[in-house]
Amino acid sequence: MKDKLTIVKVGGKIVEGESSLDVLLHGFAAIDGFKLLVHGGGRSATAMASRLGIETVMIDGRRVTDSDMLRVVTMVYAGSVNKNIVARLQAMGVDALGMTGADMNIILSRKRKAAPVDYGWVGDPVAVNDGALASLLQAGVVPVVAPLTHDGAGHLLNTNADTMAGTVARGLAGRFDVSLVYCFEKPGVLRDENDDTSVIPVIDRNSFDTLRADGIVTGGMIPKIENALAAIDEGVTEVVITAHDAIGGGTRIVR
Amino acid sequence: MKDKLTIVKVGGKIVEGESSLDVLLHGFAAIDGFKLLVHGGGRSATAMASRLGIETVMIDGRRVTDSDMLRVVTMVYAGSVNKNIVARLQAMGVDALGMTGADMNIILSRKRKAAPVDYGWVGDPVAVNDGALASLLQAGVVPVVAPLTHDGAGHLLNTNADTMAGTVARGLAGRFDVSLVYCFEKPGVLRDENDDTSVIPVIDRNSFDTLRADGIVTGGMIPKIENALAAIDEGVTEVVITAHDAIGGGTRIVR
Repeated sequence: MKDKLTIVKVGGKIVEGESSLDVLLHGFAAIDGFKLLVHGGGRSATAMASRLGIETVMIDGRRVTDSDMLRVVTMVYAGSVNKNIVARLQAMGVDALGMTGADMNIILSRKRKAAPVDYGWVGDPVAVNDGALASLLQAGVVPVVAPLTHDGAGHLLNTNADTMAGTVARGLAGRFDVSLVYCFEKPGVLRDENDDTSVIPVIDRNSFDTLRADGIVTGGMIPKIENALAAIDEGVTEVVITAHDAIGGGTRIVR
Repeated sequence: MKDKLTIVKVGGKIVEGESSLDVLLHGFAAIDGFKLLVHGGGRSATAMASRLGIETVMIDGRRVTDSDMLRVVTMVYAGSVNKNIVARLQAMGVDALGMTGADMNIILSRKRKAAPVDYGWVGDPVAVNDGALASLLQAGVVPVVAPLTHDGAGHLLNTNADTMAGTVARGLAGRFDVSLVYCFEKPGVLRDENDDTSVIPVIDRNSFDTLRADGIVTGGMIPKIENALAAIDEGVTEVVITAHDAIGGGTRIVR
């Protein structure tokens, strides 16, 4: 039987708020077994870019990353956001290690093609160093991963944190029983979007088809669940959709 | 017989120049055996602070680090400077891992007392996690250490890079045959300060006393050599003073 590994992905909005970060980190610290955190930081990057007179350009929700913006996201994601999380987790007795994909080459990416949209220094993961991550985890280390990777030729690449979390989850699914937890605003997939207590505890492919046909799951939740089911098809045991203050609860998406 | 470990300390001036950094990293990559890099980044931090309208205050050559300045040095040291080095070393086949003292709790510090001078969020190392560093090194990982530590209570602390390199060297001297290499502007301790070819190859305590009495070693070089001799008294095998483009050469300070 494989050991359980919990991978938590949390977005910029949570990690950039003092109190929400504190709640998240206490919930994360309380997780039993092997664990790994992937964080965002986009709002802080946008704010820092603005202070430096660097314009933030987003296309389809993705940040265009020229050299100046790459420097900003590297400072913010791998510097201030990542290291503050690491220091706080250490204070909670969690042996955190802040990393980007470049560190120990844990995630190698390919720079995205410049057409049809030139996003600049943006990369899509192509390989996970599952051996390196497994060694760290087995040694009791808790990786805290910032949303940057590298191309293996000396360049850092801005990389979507959701994608990185999914990539790491799939890459470690051969070695661990992986639970991939995405923290969103809502406490899970809701039967009634106006009722936070209406969380659907478990969704599988069959019930997803029914929920979608009945119009209960709609809009942006559909691709999220489709991505979750795709991760499960690639070996991830479950994907959990929950809120940062409800780790341990939420909606479990399973085979 | 203990394995050899080379610890290289390089200052901000070198790591912030494209070509000097490239020369340094090629020299570092060529070092045989276990190795670890400690870097500075003060000039970039000062420049970034200035762009953000944050005044840099230095007292006796040490940076006063209020909360705003701590955020700047965290971004610059642990973010842009550290991760660029990591990505470049990875491209050279070196399995680099960027770290601060908070990561895996490798260096725990105590915040400096606010009197007689209040330096703010500045720390002095009190403990090295030699077990964690040794495990990484034995696994083939090359730590790249930014000049920040933590207090174990969730706060990052700005820390002198020379001090960190010396602390790590002493902390690992029980497990490794440690060579601690400080990169300066000059290719070593010079017999004639106007002649870069007049490097004194080896200095021990006896020859140091003579060199000082004869007025050959003067000024700022005296405390550097005294610190080196103190490190050797605490178990470090040798301290090397050289230039970033002359790793492998320089002046060896030995027992």
